[in-house]
Parts: sequence; C-alpha cells; structure tokens
Amino acid sequence: MSLGAFDEPTAFEARSGPHVAAAFYPTAMRASGTSRLRVARVHFSPGARTAWHQHPFGQILHVLQGRGRVQQRGHPVEDFQAGDTIVTLPGEWHCHGAAPGTFMTHLAIQEADDDCKDVYWGEHVTDEEYHDTHDR
Amino acid sequence: MSLGAFDEPTAFEARSGPHVAAAFYPTAMRASGTSRLRVARVHFSPGARTAWHQHPFGQILHVLQGRGRVQQRGHPVEDFQAGDTIVTLPGEWHCHGAAPGTFMTHLAIQEADDDCKDVYWGEHVTDEEYHDTHDR
Repeated sequence: MSLGAFDEPTAFEARSGPHVAAAFYPTAMRASGTSRLRVARVHFSPGARTAWHQHPFGQILHVLQGRGRVQQRGHPVEDFQAGDTIVTLPGEWHCHGAAPGTFMTHLAIQEADDDCKDVYWGEHVTDEEYHDTHDR
Repeated sequence: MSLGAFDEPTAFEARSGPHVAAAFYPTAMRASGTSRLRVARVHFSPGARTAWHQHPFGQILHVLQGRGRVQQRGHPVEDFQAGDTIVTLPGEWHCHGAAPGTFMTHLAIQEADDDCKDVYWGEHVTDEEYHDTHDR
C-alpha cells in the first residue's frame, strides 16, 4: 500500500498544440501485473484541450476544479463543472478541456488494452470545433 | 457519452455496522461489456469506516474532502486528507474511513474480476483496531 499527495506530479507531459497537461500515474498500480487501470490527474490551462482521442474500454472523467467542455465527435459541445462526471464508451472519439477564462482539473480514469495502450490519439481539435456553439 | 452531476447518488447502500456509504456507480461503463472498471464516490460520516476488504486487481482511492484513515491489515493506521491518493495492491486486506470529528469523501476506483466482483469483504474493523495508534 502507498499513500501520498500527488500535488507534485511524478510525470509531466507538455504536448505540442493546444493540449498542455500535468499528469500523475500511480505506477504501483501499473506494476502489479494484473491491473489494467490507469488514473491521471490532468490540469488544463484556460482554453486548453485534448486532441481527438478514444479509449479501448471507455473512460470516466471526474471534474475536481473549474469549468470545462467535452465533445463527442460529430455532436454538440457540452459544458461541465467541478463535481460532474463524464462517461465515454469504448472507441468513442471525443475531446475535453478547460473553458476559456478558467483552469480546469479532472481525474481521468481508464483501462489499458493488451498492447498496454489506454488511449488512441487523433488530430488536434480546431478552434472552430471547440468554440462552435459557445463563443460566436 | 453521458455527462452529469452525481451529487444525488443513483445507488445508495447503508451497510450494517460502522460502514455507512452513499455511492454512485456509472452504469454506462458497466454495461459496455468490455470494461471492468468500477468507480464510486463514497461518503463517510465521522468515524465511519469500511470493513476489512480486498480488491482482486487492487484499488486507487482519491480523497475529495475531509480527513481519514487507512490501514493495511497488520500494519499501523495512516492518516490522509483531501488531495491524497492511496494505492492498494491486488489481494491486500485493508480498511479506510473518516477520522473522528470529520466527514470524508473519496473516489474509489477498482476493477471487477471474471465473477463480476470488485471487492471481497471480511469482518468489521473494531474500535481498538481503528483507533489503535491515535486516540489513546
């Protein structure tokens, strides 16, 4: 068993493009050999979002702080806020991130497949897609 | 995809003994057929705790509110607080709950086995065990 505050991320990823995220991955769970669970706390700066992506077994997001947006590809953008939970199904292409003007933090919870991949990435989300129904 | 606030639990369990918990289970994830992920937001009243239990693939707890205690069976009680993350390994018997005098809320994140069980329960935790190193 291990216990700790993960306010200092043990892994930091700054991806190119609009997605800037600091994430922790509890490596003890990944090292157990039988668990396929992956949990990350992801921090978004205002307006930052993921690229389009999907998860082999789906995903649960739990929003810890701020306001954000999520979009299933081909569907309207939806708003969320701290306390909300978003469930996406296996293989469902989507993106999520912070609303303009606010930082946003969520837990991202998903499972890895037999190739040890818990996410499959696509193209970046354009400003037109992300701000489609909100900012015009 | 689904999005919502889970402040009103969709499932409520009040177990006998010291463990009183209101939990939500995102049923869409359970219904996907391939995901074995289980996520619950569990609320503890002051001093309330789980019975001894273990998870087939381990567990990640993320503490949302309050102060609590966790114990790996046979080891000393450890304190935690909002923002902490606790990782338990597959098959590791443990308990967790709120400290006396404070409510505590955590996300509980684990995976179900081929029997659709994500937790195996044992006996209740006695006051002597839970307060062992703190309150004397």
